[in-house]
Amino acid sequence: MSQKYTYLDYAAATPMDPRVLAAMQPFFTEQFYNPSATYEPALKVARELQSARAKIAHWLGARASEVIFTAGGTEANNLAIHGVMQRYPDSNIVVSGIEHDAVLKPAKQYDYREVKVDEQGIVSLEDLRTNIDDKTVLISIMYANNEIGTVQPIREVAKIVNEIRDDRRQNGNSLPLYLHTDACQAAAYLDLHAARLGVDLMTINGGKMYGPKQSGALYVRAGIELAPFILGGGQERGVRSGTENVAACVGLAVALDLVQADRHNEVARLQNLQKKFIDQLQTTFPDAIINGSQKKRLPSNIHVTFPGRDNERLLLQLEQQGILAAAGSACSASSEEASHVLEALGLSEELSRASIRFSLGHGTTEPHLGQAIAALKTCLA
Amino acid sequence: MSQKYTYLDYAAATPMDPRVLAAMQPFFTEQFYNPSATYEPALKVARELQSARAKIAHWLGARASEVIFTAGGTEANNLAIHGVMQRYPDSNIVVSGIEHDAVLKPAKQYDYREVKVDEQGIVSLEDLRTNIDDKTVLISIMYANNEIGTVQPIREVAKIVNEIRDDRRQNGNSLPLYLHTDACQAAAYLDLHAARLGVDLMTINGGKMYGPKQSGALYVRAGIELAPFILGGGQERGVRSGTENVAACVGLAVALDLVQADRHNEVARLQNLQKKFIDQLQTTFPDAIINGSQKKRLPSNIHVTFPGRDNERLLLQLEQQGILAAAGSACSASSEEASHVLEALGLSEELSRASIRFSLGHGTTEPHLGQAIAALKTCLA
Repeated sequence: MSQKYTYLDYAAATPMDPRVLAAMQPFFTEQFYNPSATYEPALKVARELQSARAKIAHWLGARASEVIFTAGGTEANNLAIHGVMQRYPDSNIVVSGIEHDAVLKPAKQYDYREVKVDEQGIVSLEDLRTNIDDKTVLISIMYANNEIGTVQPIREVAKIVNEIRDDRRQNGNSLPLYLHTDACQAAAYLDLHAARLGVDLMTINGGKMYGPKQSGALYVRAGIELAPFILGGGQERGVRSGTENVAACVGLAVALDLVQADRHNEVARLQNLQKKFIDQLQTTFPDAIINGSQKKRLPSNIHVTFPGRDNERLLLQLEQQGILAAAGSACSASSEEASHVLEALGLSEELSRASIRFSLGHGTTEPHLGQAIAALKTCLA
Repeated sequence: MSQKYTYLDYAAATPMDPRVLAAMQPFFTEQFYNPSATYEPALKVARELQSARAKIAHWLGARASEVIFTAGGTEANNLAIHGVMQRYPDSNIVVSGIEHDAVLKPAKQYDYREVKVDEQGIVSLEDLRTNIDDKTVLISIMYANNEIGTVQPIREVAKIVNEIRDDRRQNGNSLPLYLHTDACQAAAYLDLHAARLGVDLMTINGGKMYGPKQSGALYVRAGIELAPFILGGGQERGVRSGTENVAACVGLAVALDLVQADRHNEVARLQNLQKKFIDQLQTTFPDAIINGSQKKRLPSNIHVTFPGRDNERLLLQLEQQGILAAAGSACSASSEEASHVLEALGLSEELSRASIRFSLGHGTTEPHLGQAIAALKTCLA
């Protein structure tokens, strides 16, 4: 990472942990064999792939067979949604209004309903109930939001889902009801145990947790059959064909292992930094508005509105001061549209365009945040 | 690669060229930024991504904007077929009977027709004409076959496609007719210039040419609009969303550059080895049958039937002698079904199950082939 800059955009991309890269290296060269081949050196690679799958399954409280490797989080979200919805073409899907486009856009190809969030970005459980009807087969509520860092009450959502399942059983409605969560931003900080959360499908993404880009996985609870998404040689239980990217799968497993094993420490460390940063922001810029819930929030995210300012201009000025931050999701960074997430929170377009996101990570220390405050002072003077 | 073994399965997987890996390394760590972010270090990464795209475009005789990065060849084939067929739902697709499953299986989801091949595995141009009707929108004929190495007359196919386009114009049929070719096995050895070949869409695959696994690209001629395949942040012109795997894209570009720049030398070298190997096979095992065209063939492929033998058993025996070869496509290595490719050539199931594939590559030298002949002698004694 460049020494010239203070990087505060970890939600957009994370550098690979050197231990992740080290674990991947053998699979680029010596252990390059196709894991579907039948000779011993290839079987060894297949075993390493399986061991990576088991390592991921461990953190999800799952079985290895419940983990499908994908080329990234976006693909895993697409697989979850198309995989369920194509099997139940007469059904509908319910999503929150602040999902990432990787959920929203596939969902919009089907009969879809959007659940409201409150002004803090927390999904309304009441509105969730209202939106689920007898034909709902899939609910997708993200675990933690990529823009504002809000953490959703997934366990409570799961409780509601369970109640509705009971009702369906009593009423003789045999349509299943599945709960998917996009945990791309959550995986480094929150509990991923699928049964504790009560989810049936869950997306994780290596590129947001110090693993390789376009590494990812979809947890699919045993018994759920997905329509295949990428057809061919039949890898990944037939739903994601293509010679396996063994290096990336191994890298994803090591990355998840590292962040999950250390997450309590890292959450405490970042929460401390986050609190100090928010305090300093509020002291230094009394007009500044912190968006999203301050209680139910990733420790890595600070999303702030500076009323009357233009975020594009502010980001350029910050960059000149050596601070790298973002206006919202990286994917839409170059788009002209205002954020659908901030709109769902009820922010006006003007306030939305006055908002920026700082996201912290492994390399972030207190002096970095001091630099950010100093830079903001200069820019906003 | 293990010294213990002589690897003759390059069609299943290739080790990464050290120069490819070296080119990728910076993008795992220092240059990890999200190419969609707006600050300079991310723009630099975006430029490197664009430069990789341009490098690939160069060998395809294309513009950078005509190259879509995908996570592998299978995904690129799926994108080509779904991308066209979903835009023209009332149309049909024509494919050869010896396509890889990554083409065949997506094609079978639509109104699809299969073109016959002759006993050498060359597509029948007459049968191709017969299968194309007024509702055909896509033809997919692989450039070189993964099992038997046969190279298809793509230029002649393109000529027919052009004639039919002319007819359609005269008859007022405005349905386009696109020609796709799966060049996954061809890219290391054959001319990839899209205009010279006359193709509209072409798949390449890093994992089969000393590049990273699950790196790939689809050439899409300017003016062709595909239905999006993976939805989300809108990367890759909206058809393949997901934070770009910059390292893999850079690796793919370097791999293609290396194999294409040296392909005339490597083709000559391997053709010489291939000829000697075939001669020795025929001298040593007079019953042995070489499958596929001996003229129109990849220099890397030797596919041979040993009548009366069982290929699974033979491969195990060869492995014990230190020789790694394959029974067919790696994807279906563990499947119970006989090869659809050999069936299309007219081989009986018995002969099909007596066939094995040797595939040569960068590391293959004459002594390796001598070892293979010696091992075969022992096994077939």
